[in-house]
Amino acid sequence: MGVEESLSRLAEMVDGELLGDSGVRVRGVNELAAAGEEEITFITHPRLATEAAASRAAAVIVPRGVELPGKPAIRVKDPYLAVAVIHNHFLHRPFAAAGIHPRAHVGPECRVPAEVSIGPSAVLGTGVVLGKRVTVGPGTVIGDHAFIGDDCVLHANVTIYAHSRLGRRVIVHSGAVIGSDGFGYATDDRGRHVKRPHVGSVEIEDDVEIGANVCIDRGTFGKTVVREGAKIDNLVQLAHNVVVGERSLLVSQVGIAGSTTLGRGVVLGGQVGVAGHLELGDRVMVGAKSGVHNSQQPGAVISGIPAIAHKKWLLAVSAFQKMPELIKEIRTLRKKVAGLLQEHPAGEPDAE
Amino acid sequence: MGVEESLSRLAEMVDGELLGDSGVRVRGVNELAAAGEEEITFITHPRLATEAAASRAAAVIVPRGVELPGKPAIRVKDPYLAVAVIHNHFLHRPFAAAGIHPRAHVGPECRVPAEVSIGPSAVLGTGVVLGKRVTVGPGTVIGDHAFIGDDCVLHANVTIYAHSRLGRRVIVHSGAVIGSDGFGYATDDRGRHVKRPHVGSVEIEDDVEIGANVCIDRGTFGKTVVREGAKIDNLVQLAHNVVVGERSLLVSQVGIAGSTTLGRGVVLGGQVGVAGHLELGDRVMVGAKSGVHNSQQPGAVISGIPAIAHKKWLLAVSAFQKMPELIKEIRTLRKKVAGLLQEHPAGEPDAE
Amino acid sequence: MGVEESLSRLAEMVDGELLGDSGVRVRGVNELAAAGEEEITFITHPRLATEAAASRAAAVIVPRGVELPGKPAIRVKDPYLAVAVIHNHFLHRPFAAAGIHPRAHVGPECRVPAEVSIGPSAVLGTGVVLGKRVTVGPGTVIGDHAFIGDDCVLHANVTIYAHSRLGRRVIVHSGAVIGSDGFGYATDDRGRHVKRPHVGSVEIEDDVEIGANVCIDRGTFGKTVVREGAKIDNLVQLAHNVVVGERSLLVSQVGIAGSTTLGRGVVLGGQVGVAGHLELGDRVMVGAKSGVHNSQQPGAVISGIPAIAHKKWLLAVSAFQKMPELIKEIRTLRKKVAGLLQEHPAGEPDAE
Repeated sequence: MGVEESLSRLAEMVDGELLGDSGVRVRGVNELAAAGEEEITFITHPRLATEAAASRAAAVIVPRGVELPGKPAIRVKDPYLAVAVIHNHFLHRPFAAAGIHPRAHVGPECRVPAEVSIGPSAVLGTGVVLGKRVTVGPGTVIGDHAFIGDDCVLHANVTIYAHSRLGRRVIVHSGAVIGSDGFGYATDDRGRHVKRPHVGSVEIEDDVEIGANVCIDRGTFGKTVVREGAKIDNLVQLAHNVVVGERSLLVSQVGIAGSTTLGRGVVLGGQVGVAGHLELGDRVMVGAKSGVHNSQQPGAVISGIPAIAHKKWLLAVSAFQKMPELIKEIRTLRKKVAGLLQEHPAGEPDAE
Repeated sequence: MGVEESLSRLAEMVDGELLGDSGVRVRGVNELAAAGEEEITFITHPRLATEAAASRAAAVIVPRGVELPGKPAIRVKDPYLAVAVIHNHFLHRPFAAAGIHPRAHVGPECRVPAEVSIGPSAVLGTGVVLGKRVTVGPGTVIGDHAFIGDDCVLHANVTIYAHSRLGRRVIVHSGAVIGSDGFGYATDDRGRHVKRPHVGSVEIEDDVEIGANVCIDRGTFGKTVVREGAKIDNLVQLAHNVVVGERSLLVSQVGIAGSTTLGRGVVLGGQVGVAGHLELGDRVMVGAKSGVHNSQQPGAVISGIPAIAHKKWLLAVSAFQKMPELIKEIRTLRKKVAGLLQEHPAGEPDAE
Repeated sequence: MGVEESLSRLAEMVDGELLGDSGVRVRGVNELAAAGEEEITFITHPRLATEAAASRAAAVIVPRGVELPGKPAIRVKDPYLAVAVIHNHFLHRPFAAAGIHPRAHVGPECRVPAEVSIGPSAVLGTGVVLGKRVTVGPGTVIGDHAFIGDDCVLHANVTIYAHSRLGRRVIVHSGAVIGSDGFGYATDDRGRHVKRPHVGSVEIEDDVEIGANVCIDRGTFGKTVVREGAKIDNLVQLAHNVVVGERSLLVSQVGIAGSTTLGRGVVLGGQVGVAGHLELGDRVMVGAKSGVHNSQQPGAVISGIPAIAHKKWLLAVSAFQKMPELIKEIRTLRKKVAGLLQEHPAGEPDAE
């Protein structure tokens, strides 16, 4: 909590407009209800302006169009972004290398720089290469010949299989498993499932974050790839040879079947399933709990099982909920038409 | 298996009605097909009475309205509850402290009472506080300054992040991760996702049970909370700042998005998803695989994607399955009406 | 990469028809785009024949009806199966026992043959029995009195609870948890959930593969069973007393509730949920994301929530997507019929 910044310096940092006393000193960030007198807080909607003005906070980050008479503020286009940048600034600490804990095991032929932290009960196999300032949490296991780039953080009890490659600044949360065998079998004449060898690997590019208990299978041949800046929430499943495009966002419990490719900036809502061997174009968005059975054009916004255009799905869902009434109505119509036909039998169509 | 109890003592314990020989001695509990001559068994439905009477069991716990001529029995309102109470009685053992295994690592400034069991390869960070009679399984990692209350059982390979707090008698199964960062990013002008710091924590109250490979994220600010007596099945995901109310039951693979609050006694079926920032009132019940998009009044019983009243959903689903026939019927009606209109064009409405 | 085989030997191995030069020497297997001059590759569809003929590969495994003039080939009924068999042949290595790592912990009364590999930070409890050639990955924990059959591979950070039994050649991927308590509670008069003891166990038969972060709960009484040759993908949940039949395939993120029994050769698509106490007959197939609420006859092919016959579901889904148009059409019909009735009131039915 040592850092202290002037409001004007913070405003600069986020390209914001300074309102009020530029000399205010700030020592941290907090949410509206909890912010103290030395902290900056934020609101994302004008309706919170009154509450913000009355808060104890030293200053407030506010969206465009908001005034806070009497309270110093920084006005920005995107308060979420500004608060993230400022909060990260306050929390930033230089990497403090703890070295290799005496209860960690580092196998032969590893390349481990001095500037790392490897926790107790962690295990590195043979020929593992760590970049600078890598953190390997307690109980984390890194398989033979895996490569972990500079500034990666592997939390506790992570498992990285042999030959996986992680870029720089990758964060992997506890329980995640990277590089397990894909689910691939050939079935023989007697119905036995013969395991197909999985000789491919996993490549995670720079600035990816991988949630707790995520599973990423290695390629059957070739690679499973998560591209630069993609973010993967807890309990997501990526099968063999999946490619996740740059800066895509996969919300919790998503599952993607083998050999499917996502473009850049794809967003999959929670519990979405995507079938195998599909291509989802750039910026495709899929509503939570949907099942995607077909490839999608860039920018498509889809929902449902199987997923269709989101707008169409909304209409269909609304209709679905009226189905019992509809059925009644059809029954009534049928009776009315039958009555009319009894009177005027010529109205009867010739055939179905 | 040392304990032996008389049937009358067991009947007292569960406030049950004793039928037959009160002097029967019982040494354990088993299911109907497997129970031996010194064990008590149970049935939950009268149709199993004949089978129960013919079983080898020393005695039978039966529901109201059941007689078992010739077989000693305890009659109770809820046999499931009675068998749980009696079985727990037989299995109860005083805590046997194994101490800190020499291959466990306990960091500096920890407060660990003598009366604990910490397994091999377990790791406690800095300043961890354990209550009395805590079990820390092999390979389990507890982060800095976490607090684990009296009589907690953390099974093997659990991960507790720094600053998490567990109440008393909390059970955490293997692979569960408590306190990982939430899935929160702000996106900058260049489309990069800037990680929002997650400086909140997790609080698990007394008597909570957490299944295998469950993920509970810490709060962004503030806390993610699981209240007293709630039970969480395997592979459930709780995002940042979720609150799970007292005695709620979350079945396997449920996912709850950020900042959603569940009341007391909420029941979510398997694979249910709940969107973020919602309030589900006390005793809300959600059918398996549903997707909840809206806040719910106390006592609501809902199903579907998006979830609607369960009864309405049942009707809609039944109608859904008849849709192809419906479409045929509408087509037939259309032809009939067209036929009628041909004869009587005045019936044509002016406009749609 | 030492092994080298003649094409004729490989053809024999897979009961294939040799086309072209039988003396070609092969040293490995690769996919079409990556295969080098000493490798055999494969195609599964005739449309890839031209590409295969032009590849650098030494030879190609092709399906029936395909000719590759100028390129040695092996023609087989099922190229997937042939490539799996040949690839496994090339990759086969005799078990290399690494012994018990000095940083592993083996508890008292364990029976561990000399011919095993137990990694650092691995923990075996009391009375664990390992078969020959068992691999226990780093950080893996095996509970008291568990039994692990010959040639099993437990990858890193697996957890096996006490008294679980694994047959021969079982593969368990990282993060999987076998034998945790089921989700079973009885609720008392005050609304508290009383934990039911789970005194059963888990039995995994021969040749089963279990994916990363899978959860398999022990029986309440009796056993949870995964029968011979079944394959379970990542993040699957099997509740207490589930029985998975021989050679069944459970794709990622499937969840099966308590006491449900699957027959032989059942296939559950990704994210399928199956309710408790059901019987799914042999060879039942369930489409991805379905929810199964009812027992199923052998051979049933079903989809949907709740699942119905797959063909019926396809029709219903197609109709669902047309619902908004349908509603419009019904409205139009209503108006037309109303118009007709105005003219001919006798057509009005007496009652609904």
